[in-house]
Amino acid sequence: MAAFQTVKGFRDFLPEDCALRNYIFDRWRAVARGYGFVEYEGPLVEPTDLYKKKSGDEITGQLFNFITKGEEDVSLRPEVTPTLARLVAANQRNFSKPLKWYQIGSCFRYEKPQRGRTREFIQFNVDIVGDTNPANADAELVAFSIDTMLAFGFEEGDFVVRLSNRRLWLDFLLENQIADEHSATFLQIIDKMERAPKDVTAKQLEVIGLSVEQVEAHIKRYLDGEAVEAPDSIFAELKADLTARGLWKFVKIDPGIVRGLAYYTGTVFEVFDLKHNLRAIAGGGRYDNLVGHLSDGAVQMSSCGFAMGDVVLTELINRHEIAKGAAEQWKRRHQAPEVYLVIADDSRRAEALGILQQLRRMGIRVDYALNPAKIGKQFQTAESLNARFAVVVGSEYPLLTVKTLRTRDQMEVSAEQLPDKLAGLLSMPESGPLIA
Amino acid sequence: MAAFQTVKGFRDFLPEDCALRNYIFDRWRAVARGYGFVEYEGPLVEPTDLYKKKSGDEITGQLFNFITKGEEDVSLRPEVTPTLARLVAANQRNFSKPLKWYQIGSCFRYEKPQRGRTREFIQFNVDIVGDTNPANADAELVAFSIDTMLAFGFEEGDFVVRLSNRRLWLDFLLENQIADEHSATFLQIIDKMERAPKDVTAKQLEVIGLSVEQVEAHIKRYLDGEAVEAPDSIFAELKADLTARGLWKFVKIDPGIVRGLAYYTGTVFEVFDLKHNLRAIAGGGRYDNLVGHLSDGAVQMSSCGFAMGDVVLTELINRHEIAKGAAEQWKRRHQAPEVYLVIADDSRRAEALGILQQLRRMGIRVDYALNPAKIGKQFQTAESLNARFAVVVGSEYPLLTVKTLRTRDQMEVSAEQLPDKLAGLLSMPESGPLIA
Repeated sequence: MAAFQTVKGFRDFLPEDCALRNYIFDRWRAVARGYGFVEYEGPLVEPTDLYKKKSGDEITGQLFNFITKGEEDVSLRPEVTPTLARLVAANQRNFSKPLKWYQIGSCFRYEKPQRGRTREFIQFNVDIVGDTNPANADAELVAFSIDTMLAFGFEEGDFVVRLSNRRLWLDFLLENQIADEHSATFLQIIDKMERAPKDVTAKQLEVIGLSVEQVEAHIKRYLDGEAVEAPDSIFAELKADLTARGLWKFVKIDPGIVRGLAYYTGTVFEVFDLKHNLRAIAGGGRYDNLVGHLSDGAVQMSSCGFAMGDVVLTELINRHEIAKGAAEQWKRRHQAPEVYLVIADDSRRAEALGILQQLRRMGIRVDYALNPAKIGKQFQTAESLNARFAVVVGSEYPLLTVKTLRTRDQMEVSAEQLPDKLAGLLSMPESGPLIA
Repeated sequence: MAAFQTVKGFRDFLPEDCALRNYIFDRWRAVARGYGFVEYEGPLVEPTDLYKKKSGDEITGQLFNFITKGEEDVSLRPEVTPTLARLVAANQRNFSKPLKWYQIGSCFRYEKPQRGRTREFIQFNVDIVGDTNPANADAELVAFSIDTMLAFGFEEGDFVVRLSNRRLWLDFLLENQIADEHSATFLQIIDKMERAPKDVTAKQLEVIGLSVEQVEAHIKRYLDGEAVEAPDSIFAELKADLTARGLWKFVKIDPGIVRGLAYYTGTVFEVFDLKHNLRAIAGGGRYDNLVGHLSDGAVQMSSCGFAMGDVVLTELINRHEIAKGAAEQWKRRHQAPEVYLVIADDSRRAEALGILQQLRRMGIRVDYALNPAKIGKQFQTAESLNARFAVVVGSEYPLLTVKTLRTRDQMEVSAEQLPDKLAGLLSMPESGPLIA
């Protein structure tokens, strides 16, 4: 029997990877709580019907769906927005509006695994549901996406929010008297246009009675700023709000952004890095009809949201000096043992175990050698674990030695004084940079 | 079309439920870090073969397994230990031993949903892999399970660790000259004995040449303490270690505990509540051969571990006054907005948005009314969100009012002074209990 492998497109998180993942979760939650959002979660498995015709063909073609032992047709969730809409339709009576909700968890798509794309990935979903003024809610959401990037240490010049509005294209279709039935196809063409050869785009547009020149001229009016600066611009309110927050400098109006999913109805945006040409870090927009669709019209709630994945974000953090440094600092502050207990005389093991539990009960992170080992070996382990202090329990018990591992300073302390002494030492900042 | 339902046996976590789940994660991680364990995670989907014959029939009969679009036979993981063994077999060269690893995430079993049992549940897995002295590692693990219970506010009298060792029964079979081939069946009988009618157990034992009386006599020697107190007792080292830690009082030797899974080889234990007669809160033991099995003999590592689920634990927290109070306090400390920004004059909205972002950037949790609303309504929202302070931005800008919502104390502050003033106020403890 060959050794077992991870299923293709799925990931193992060894401790270093998992620590970085936890750091990302911690930052996501910190920003969300700072913005007054509350966390929810749905099941990882949902009825397959929830996605059919709601998420669009691109996603339903990539479903991990199957029949259970109980004959239910279910899917691993490919995205969380339909779950949110289901939850809201069923429970919204119990909450005052608007709901500001976020979620963090795995999603699954059967896509070709490649850089920035895995079959199981983690999404951060942020949504405002039941708002009454779209521009104000959209602005809070775009601000949230920007502050999330800043919270990781990314700066102006590292990333941009490419912002558009689907109505800008629906108005364009109306002006050019293109039938409604073509609008989904048309938006797909715009979505792919940036990466498609021009002649392919031209042929696709021709089928529905449009030319590349007409489309490019419409885009140019926004890229130039002409249509953005107009007082009746579709972006006027959003721009005023984000300008007041000092965040407009991170935004670029770009009609080329339409988003692949079927359910968006207004504002759409994507966050891109500006240096490495990776896939979008985050994307979202307004979806005013989804809750109504999924509740069969029983509950109508205008909504907007965005999702950020962990795969591209992780790659960007690893390539960015400040972001990577912040992650390393977090790991040390939250994970390394504060104290390593060196048992220098194994006949004092019982006393050492008593101290071990006493310190842990105080909330101090303490590790020790599970089995008797030479003193030098125990100190080596303490240093390899990046512990801050060693406490040596030896034949002089109840006299103990406390050693600061970085500076090699040491002092003698009685077992009785140890808890107070350590609490004092741990409350002081470490001298020198946290990262060696 | 009817409204969509959650798939049977799966759970939605609305914000209150999710906050309690996050509190549980937070406590689990705090204890794990305090014990010097590091976190890892595996995929939610694994090859079905990983579970066949490794986890035992009970689990493989409950698999959510299916064939992917790429013809792979995969399963939603029913437990995490096989994943851990796979990870360790593939990567152990890069880590010093023993590994002290933990994991938190969903598992899936197609069981009949009932009290304390769902089809998707969250497990906390704690393992020591590659230890050289079983008793020392087993003791660290049992201590960990006890401290986890204490960290939630449970106390002596609320719960007990029922501890045994499979060797105690294997020795018994040897003494009674029962063939090796019957040992798996025999352990299943002991596992079910507590809940089975005595005549059923008697018939099952008779098939392999044993009587209920023989079994009960063997159990009695341990329940009485006679076999535990013997100097050569199988429990002697473990007892000495846990006594030194002050934790033996939480343990009860109970040969009736054998654990359902096939792979255990030594110490086994389960944590039970003593008041509500619910299913086990946690369980685990030693599995010295699993890493070897899964690596086809390439890597032999003795190991022990336990898992704690969230379903029974959540129910116990909700029934325990101290544990529930601690959870509520955590929620308020980590989730409620610290400041609610009241926009008393909408012509000052831009200035208010500037303040909003400035405070959030400082790490203060700030919420506000997305849309213009009456002042009274905004204060109501602030109170319903349990916010600590309201900051009122009105026509007197840059003069602002800071109001302590619980006491209704208020003071005037300039916009420039606000950040320092708020940082000072927030660093002070709230007067009175946190829970109203």
